[in-house]
Amino acid sequence: MAHVSIIGTGSMGSAIAEVVGRGGNTVELLGSGDGATPVTGDVVVLAVPYGAVADIVARRAEQLAGKVVVDITNPVDFATFDSLVVPADGSATAEIAAALPGSRVVKAFNTTFAATLTAGTVGGEPTTVLIAGDDAEAKAALAGIVTAGGLRAVDAGSLRRARELEALGFLQISLAAGEKIAWTGGFAVVP
Amino acid sequence: MAHVSIIGTGSMGSAIAEVVGRGGNTVELLGSGDGATPVTGDVVVLAVPYGAVADIVARRAEQLAGKVVVDITNPVDFATFDSLVVPADGSATAEIAAALPGSRVVKAFNTTFAATLTAGTVGGEPTTVLIAGDDAEAKAALAGIVTAGGLRAVDAGSLRRARELEALGFLQISLAAGEKIAWTGGFAVVP
Repeated sequence: MAHVSIIGTGSMGSAIAEVVGRGGNTVELLGSGDGATPVTGDVVVLAVPYGAVADIVARRAEQLAGKVVVDITNPVDFATFDSLVVPADGSATAEIAAALPGSRVVKAFNTTFAATLTAGTVGGEPTTVLIAGDDAEAKAALAGIVTAGGLRAVDAGSLRRARELEALGFLQISLAAGEKIAWTGGFAVVP
Repeated sequence: MAHVSIIGTGSMGSAIAEVVGRGGNTVELLGSGDGATPVTGDVVVLAVPYGAVADIVARRAEQLAGKVVVDITNPVDFATFDSLVVPADGSATAEIAAALPGSRVVKAFNTTFAATLTAGTVGGEPTTVLIAGDDAEAKAALAGIVTAGGLRAVDAGSLRRARELEALGFLQISLAAGEKIAWTGGFAVVP
């Protein structure tokens, strides 16, 4: 049994909480502005927009030491909607990992819209959570939580693949914003 | 009725030729080493590996002027399998467009494996060709050929989105090479 802390109570935080609970694991849901409540989970999901991550990381770095920290952000430049705000050869996940050297940082959930997490399917396929990171045990722990919750989990590779996951997330958001796909659709992973 | 020239007779060139023919459009298929035969299509697909593009572009730049040129490449660094060989903030398509200022260059077909082009489906979804480029008419012409061939076409945005399409293509290839997905699967686009 895993205990998961989710920081952020928006649509993604709520959807991830539902997936975790569905698998019989326990959830602690914290508001993004809550700086006082300690995180008790072994796995901590930062379910907040990219712009809110740095402050949480700065305030909670000590608490997050040793834990699996899950970055779900898509660092889209919402002013131009034409690029990401992280360096072209980097990722939000790489920045977070650098800021939390004592944590086991992975990328996940940024390529699945909230609606497909709660539905459990996208089109005719099970919703697939792509996970990238350098810590194999951390990825396996998260994959176990995801599959217990009825979704598919796929190891997408090392932390460097977070860059491609963020490109995929950005593309998916831009397609939905441009009404080429619905927010209930997106990229399905066909095995 | 469109007339399409395809340079490259590998699995992708053959699969694209099949899609074009299925839609009642005509195809001219040229070997990548063929420097003599003129291209007669209004749409020209460069169905060759990234490393072979520069030579074709250099030899055929005049012939390609005014035409819709389709870049399908995934410029993966196959030595490391850990990045693309194009600049992190650029794309193969941007390089080709710069080398062919008189042509109407679009990105397409790099996110669909050959098997899903010929099958017409990926999982339970119609195979979707994502098209990026700055010339709306060129994208529409290619989309018409793709949909006539029984596939779905989605306008993925400007030429700058070729970067994200190449990230998606790289990720998909790396998942297949790592046996996380099959070469008959990949990313389906759920509308």
